[in-house]
Amino acid sequence: MATVNTKTGQAVDRTVLDSMLRRRMFYTPSFEIYGGVSGLYDFGPPGTALIANMTDLWRKHFVLEEDMLETSGHVDKFADWMCKDPKTGEIFRADHLVEEVLEARLKGDKQARGEKIEVDEEKEAKKKRKAKGTEAKKLDDALVKEYEETLAQIDNYGGPELEQLIKKHDIRNPVTGGEVLPPVSFNLMFQTSIGPSSNMPGYLRPETAQGQFLNFAKLLEFNQQSMPFASASIGKSFRNEISPRAGLLRVREFLMAEIEHYVDPEGGKKHSRFDEVKDTELALLDRNVQLSGSTNLTKMTVGKAVETGLVDNETLGYFLARIQSFLLKLGVDPAKLRFRQHMANEMAHYATDCWDAELQTSYGWIECVGCADRSAYDLTVHKDKTGAPLVVRQARAEPLRIEEYQIDLEKKKFGPRFKKDAKTVEAAIEALSQDLREKLSLDLEKDGKIEVDVEGVGSGKVEIEKDLIKIEKRTRVENVREYTPNVIEPSFGIGRILYSVIEHSYWSRAGDETRGVLSFPPAIAPTKVLLVPLSTHASFKPLTQRLTSKLRKAGVSNRVDDSSASIGKRYSRNDELGTPFGITVDFQSVQDNTFTLRDRDTTKQVRASEDEILQAVKSLVEGDETWEDIRKRLPEFTSQEIEA
Amino acid sequence: MATVNTKTGQAVDRTVLDSMLRRRMFYTPSFEIYGGVSGLYDFGPPGTALIANMTDLWRKHFVLEEDMLETSGHVDKFADWMCKDPKTGEIFRADHLVEEVLEARLKGDKQARGEKIEVDEEKEAKKKRKAKGTEAKKLDDALVKEYEETLAQIDNYGGPELEQLIKKHDIRNPVTGGEVLPPVSFNLMFQTSIGPSSNMPGYLRPETAQGQFLNFAKLLEFNQQSMPFASASIGKSFRNEISPRAGLLRVREFLMAEIEHYVDPEGGKKHSRFDEVKDTELALLDRNVQLSGSTNLTKMTVGKAVETGLVDNETLGYFLARIQSFLLKLGVDPAKLRFRQHMANEMAHYATDCWDAELQTSYGWIECVGCADRSAYDLTVHKDKTGAPLVVRQARAEPLRIEEYQIDLEKKKFGPRFKKDAKTVEAAIEALSQDLREKLSLDLEKDGKIEVDVEGVGSGKVEIEKDLIKIEKRTRVENVREYTPNVIEPSFGIGRILYSVIEHSYWSRAGDETRGVLSFPPAIAPTKVLLVPLSTHASFKPLTQRLTSKLRKAGVSNRVDDSSASIGKRYSRNDELGTPFGITVDFQSVQDNTFTLRDRDTTKQVRASEDEILQAVKSLVEGDETWEDIRKRLPEFTSQEIEA
Repeated sequence: MATVNTKTGQAVDRTVLDSMLRRRMFYTPSFEIYGGVSGLYDFGPPGTALIANMTDLWRKHFVLEEDMLETSGHVDKFADWMCKDPKTGEIFRADHLVEEVLEARLKGDKQARGEKIEVDEEKEAKKKRKAKGTEAKKLDDALVKEYEETLAQIDNYGGPELEQLIKKHDIRNPVTGGEVLPPVSFNLMFQTSIGPSSNMPGYLRPETAQGQFLNFAKLLEFNQQSMPFASASIGKSFRNEISPRAGLLRVREFLMAEIEHYVDPEGGKKHSRFDEVKDTELALLDRNVQLSGSTNLTKMTVGKAVETGLVDNETLGYFLARIQSFLLKLGVDPAKLRFRQHMANEMAHYATDCWDAELQTSYGWIECVGCADRSAYDLTVHKDKTGAPLVVRQARAEPLRIEEYQIDLEKKKFGPRFKKDAKTVEAAIEALSQDLREKLSLDLEKDGKIEVDVEGVGSGKVEIEKDLIKIEKRTRVENVREYTPNVIEPSFGIGRILYSVIEHSYWSRAGDETRGVLSFPPAIAPTKVLLVPLSTHASFKPLTQRLTSKLRKAGVSNRVDDSSASIGKRYSRNDELGTPFGITVDFQSVQDNTFTLRDRDTTKQVRASEDEILQAVKSLVEGDETWEDIRKRLPEFTSQEIEA
Repeated sequence: MATVNTKTGQAVDRTVLDSMLRRRMFYTPSFEIYGGVSGLYDFGPPGTALIANMTDLWRKHFVLEEDMLETSGHVDKFADWMCKDPKTGEIFRADHLVEEVLEARLKGDKQARGEKIEVDEEKEAKKKRKAKGTEAKKLDDALVKEYEETLAQIDNYGGPELEQLIKKHDIRNPVTGGEVLPPVSFNLMFQTSIGPSSNMPGYLRPETAQGQFLNFAKLLEFNQQSMPFASASIGKSFRNEISPRAGLLRVREFLMAEIEHYVDPEGGKKHSRFDEVKDTELALLDRNVQLSGSTNLTKMTVGKAVETGLVDNETLGYFLARIQSFLLKLGVDPAKLRFRQHMANEMAHYATDCWDAELQTSYGWIECVGCADRSAYDLTVHKDKTGAPLVVRQARAEPLRIEEYQIDLEKKKFGPRFKKDAKTVEAAIEALSQDLREKLSLDLEKDGKIEVDVEGVGSGKVEIEKDLIKIEKRTRVENVREYTPNVIEPSFGIGRILYSVIEHSYWSRAGDETRGVLSFPPAIAPTKVLLVPLSTHASFKPLTQRLTSKLRKAGVSNRVDDSSASIGKRYSRNDELGTPFGITVDFQSVQDNTFTLRDRDTTKQVRASEDEILQAVKSLVEGDETWEDIRKRLPEFTSQEIEA
């Protein structure tokens, strides 16, 4: 294990940190009271809030700030079994198909037996009876039982069982009555189009992204044909990881956030807001340095990196800078952040350039965000496979004038002359290159006829006289440009970022392991403010209730801790939960309505009136002021706080 | 189909609405360019934003406002296959187990062949070698190939295939080397504990909830043993629906939001904030009215409903009122909302009372939120099955003093006297009721001995002399009360609410179907403000850019439409998207920096300075002011807007 230090210089002890995270219920093994399921975790309240706050920040930083089009993904379906109706081309989930047909038959049976069908079911039954083979028809009692048992465990069947069921019960397309092909796993069905991006164990590129590509034409229309634009998606993915036994970091279930930014490949992939980020300094580990066996980082501005060609283009560079600013907002330690360029053999053949944002943790450097220029690959593959126009059509500012040799055929004579070969000969002529056309136009002028290679017709050479053909140089005007956009794809492994942020935020007071602190920035902290009455004295209750209700109205998440533990103990607990601020209610509060506000990281306190304290908290949480600002403008309070 | 009218009195034409929703990309069939997959949809940008805004509002309305503990759920796992190690009790996902063991063997093989193992893998390999049967060991080439092929399609195997693989490759618990039992589907493994709540096709109660119950003890600890409290969870569920062919409403994949509110069953399940809601009027369809064959609604305050016993208790009533206020915030039409009480035969035997919030749509009345008092059932079942202490232990304010007959045995003589039967006799004595003890104490005093029934010992009756036993009336003091909390469970089908809200928000201008409007409240509208420059004139660009950037900073989502379509067309498009406000940039804006602000629902406009307009927008979006407020305080602008 690499030794990694906290901000305050102690070595991170993962065992201690992990036990703290479980104790404070950031996460907890799933089904623990039933013995637990290896590798499955639930997030407890602070973990869930942390993830919700992180994805919220992601939405603000990327989707809102960059005006992206967010869509939903259909990840979870990729392990399903699908049946195709070869006639209509319709695709069914195999389990749903079996279920639908069997249910319809059972209802037909009820109908035939004269049993009451409930209101909802009746409507269904009517609809179903229109479908082939599902009319009101009595079934054998044994068959009814078999259907019912099958339905009860429909979720448990895999492909082979579903195939058997479809055969055994003659299950067909319920609308057309056509036979369906045997079930195929979803992944196989789309195999050629939905492949991993590279030859590495592909963590950072689950199949989610494909949903966005498939919807490209509609998204472009939604964006009113305007380029460039980006789509974004947050969703769960279930890619396999190497080991399910490494705690919170290596789980099977990922929350991924992905962006597909579509850009015109012409003109160097400039970005209109590149100027805003060009002076951002990045720690880069480029391909050549890695090849030389070194891991030395190069500090360089994004502007310089793009200028020197180290980073391929402005759009890619822009996103690297934006990824960095996002990670720093989350509380990532800048000293533990690097951008590593993919080696040539790590990248897919079509990728132009690819960088991973890696975060250093006690597990080593972990890739947390990938940022790849995938060229036009994905859209091209889907376009070729489906014929869907996944392209941008753009009116040219200046019409394009193209000088070219055009060929006119005298169709009336051409047909009778070549008879059954006419189409083949015509196709061969259409396919002639501009160079050949130029040569042939000269031949035609000189000899009054030309000779053209046509495979499969006569000797393979065909003679055409000048009364059948005309070849002329003309000017064609093109008003519309059609192109396949290139894709810059930043993709974020939220779970990995979460773990890294936790480690980067972790330290312990005075090097004492029992006094852990998680210094989350207020924006992502699960709870923003802890309200602590000095004791369980009844006079404090109305004050804490008023404060909590006012903070809630202001949208500031807060918790009251009115347990009988010492103030120090209660604050310690909340240091472990990463709560950045604390308000103490004491006897002076009851008298003059002033309160103390405590800062988690420094444990310093200020004291002021209720309004001032609430205003300060709001300002701190919304990032308008820092603790330093508050401390300068509000009177310090010297605490009698006893650290537990 | 029931005829349902829009707010403006036109009949809802579902075909027209549906085509508008698809055209505006609220949703779109998944994989459409590949022919689509029956019953699968992706949400496009407005649909995704709507869901995100709805869940955000849900979090604010319930989790933040009621200080609930939000946790993550593990829904997606319920279709998995699990293997149990009968010795250790450990449970593995069968596919993960096979994968882990085969991967470990392949690494052992690489090691044995002296091949380079990558850094990450090396660490793994070392770890794995500690496990039984995974040492560095060369494998047959054919076996390597077989393992690799198996791993490549591990996600496709069902239970029977996994069972075969486990047998064939002798796959065991990697840590202990113990054999594992054949794979069982997750649902079966937890069958007795995770059953549906009632005998209806159980839409509103997916298995998600169970995760919260399983974590009860930890959540209680997290809440510092303080009662009552609630946990909450948002997650996807894949419960089966009757028909996959009914468009957006009936999909297989649900977003569910669930609350488990734990309450002390003693004292009538009062709620401390009931006073805040007691005057809320609800439209109730109670059990008795339904039994009489009627669907007439009773309008009644929650206070009255609880007082008369129609709604079982305050906590249940409190949540009904809170559910209603949440739905109204989303834009639900109050005339199309009712609370229907479950009939006795719809409810599970243990449920105390259950009400569904139903919304009227063109599909009829749809249950969108369930709210059940499930008594102590779930916690009791899990407690009994696992022995985990899913209870609350509470110090009694007043110690409980219990007068009772206690029995002391003279152990030294008792053992020798009854020998191998001693334990059985002792247990029989321990089990004696207080009444019997009282009678026996009198016998003992009178006869110097007693006779006790002990099944399976001698004649079934045992005589015990007074030198062996003492029975005395004494006082026991109980300082701690232990109880299993009852659960009130509101559960929300977000997708169904989404669809209903769309239908309730839908109308068309002047009854013209081609001029559809979605009157979403600003809080959930996908985009809050449309920025419309009068034309593509260059002088407008800096102004729209400044406005969009200022709105973005203020957290107000907005879109610029600078296409060349007429203003009327552009507004029409955004009426269909439900964008509540529009700012027009015209030539006067360039001169004096004033802008017009348009209200979607009335199409009225006001004109004011940039700062005033931006402030008005913020105030409208945050709900501080209504359009009526704005119209009163800013000068009206009479528009030349040409409706498209």
